[in-house]
Amino acid sequence: MPDITLDDLVAIHHIEQLKYAYFRCLDQKRWEEMETLLIPDVEATYSGGTNSFSGRDAVLDFLQRSMGAESFHSAHHCHHPEIRLTSATDATGTWAMEDTVIMLDFDITIRGAGFYEDRYVRQNGRWLIAATGYKRLWEELAPRASTEGLQLTASWWRTDGRSSLAG
Amino acid sequence: MPDITLDDLVAIHHIEQLKYAYFRCLDQKRWEEMETLLIPDVEATYSGGTNSFSGRDAVLDFLQRSMGAESFHSAHHCHHPEIRLTSATDATGTWAMEDTVIMLDFDITIRGAGFYEDRYVRQNGRWLIAATGYKRLWEELAPRASTEGLQLTASWWRTDGRSSLAG
Amino acid sequence: MPDITLDDLVAIHHIEQLKYAYFRCLDQKRWEEMETLLIPDVEATYSGGTNSFSGRDAVLDFLQRSMGAESFHSAHHCHHPEIRLTSATDATGTWAMEDTVIMLDFDITIRGAGFYEDRYVRQNGRWLIAATGYKRLWEELAPRASTEGLQLTASWWRTDGRSSLAG
Repeated sequence: MPDITLDDLVAIHHIEQLKYAYFRCLDQKRWEEMETLLIPDVEATYSGGTNSFSGRDAVLDFLQRSMGAESFHSAHHCHHPEIRLTSATDATGTWAMEDTVIMLDFDITIRGAGFYEDRYVRQNGRWLIAATGYKRLWEELAPRASTEGLQLTASWWRTDGRSSLAG
Repeated sequence: MPDITLDDLVAIHHIEQLKYAYFRCLDQKRWEEMETLLIPDVEATYSGGTNSFSGRDAVLDFLQRSMGAESFHSAHHCHHPEIRLTSATDATGTWAMEDTVIMLDFDITIRGAGFYEDRYVRQNGRWLIAATGYKRLWEELAPRASTEGLQLTASWWRTDGRSSLAG
Repeated sequence: MPDITLDDLVAIHHIEQLKYAYFRCLDQKRWEEMETLLIPDVEATYSGGTNSFSGRDAVLDFLQRSMGAESFHSAHHCHHPEIRLTSATDATGTWAMEDTVIMLDFDITIRGAGFYEDRYVRQNGRWLIAATGYKRLWEELAPRASTEGLQLTASWWRTDGRSSLAG
């Protein structure tokens, strides 16, 4: 295995922090902070290329349109980071991912898993996302009405931290 | 981005280990080891404040009462650690979390996701949990009987490592 | 807590990378790369010992037979690494895990969680898996037909990166 230096570990740490902030912004709908994580000409290829966007504005527009509603509840988690530093200012990353999306307006739940392939660049001392995209291992969709008695019992946006929607 | 030193990486590593031990103790019901991870006057605010407790005894009492039964099966996972060292002996942490709880006695499954906000302190050279709490992105509950043919096929407490409850 | 050195952090990093590669190979069915991650006399004890195998060939044979079909969709994720370096060339690891398996041929979904206990050895400068195994917290199985309208909407092997199987 290649030697790894303290500088390498620090760079990997910063890149991981960047990815974690991206997903926190996604699930908490923090679009302004998310904008600070992407380079202006970021490339995004979600769902194996079905949804591809060039440029930060186009990416943020897509994310806000598809995930901005407070009836849209999600959890996007990434695991197993394999970060490769290719220069002092360039890196790539492979991540396992899983996501759950609860779309109350459409009465469906979507669950899936896959792998992200990202590129990162360091600009003015900060690591940023230059390209991101995933291909799915699988994704499945189920009508929520098909599970009798299924109910949402908490929501970041609807219950103000109370544990029950009825509370 | 701020400079990060080797000492910082080591501190972050210890804090992550602390959190991982907490969840191992939770899902394996190791209450004695969990006691060693919390300061005596720990503050816990679960479910966005619905369940709040002051002091290690009160926290452990709540966890054991609500999760102690062997009919209560859980998996609590945390992801995306964003640890901030605020002094040589203080730190905060934000974590994404997801949990699945199977309550056989009540015939329900609960799944959810959210974010933890923690405080950690270093005492006598060891990092400990000073405050912990989460707010949910979402939580949902389903009666297990509503999925025809759903069955538990393994249990830490019931099958002694055999893969089938019938085995 | 014990002092941790830069060398320790690097070793832990390499061991984590090894585990991440193992799961990437498992879910992407990359059996040739997986072979490079295991020592020849690796021991595997899956499902609390129900499925135990000695030797790399036996392990790979089992994995390919049970998970090789493209109708078998899985996501195996590990979390919460607690790696202990026991010598310059030996280590152990405890990991939380969760898995989802969609078996289209048998029309079932299996979800579970548990803990891995591994041993790693360093040979010729590379960390490798010497022993791996898990015990389940719980596992449950559901017929897919019992959820009306449940459908697979993407597959690594069937949709070539398109987001819809019908696309």
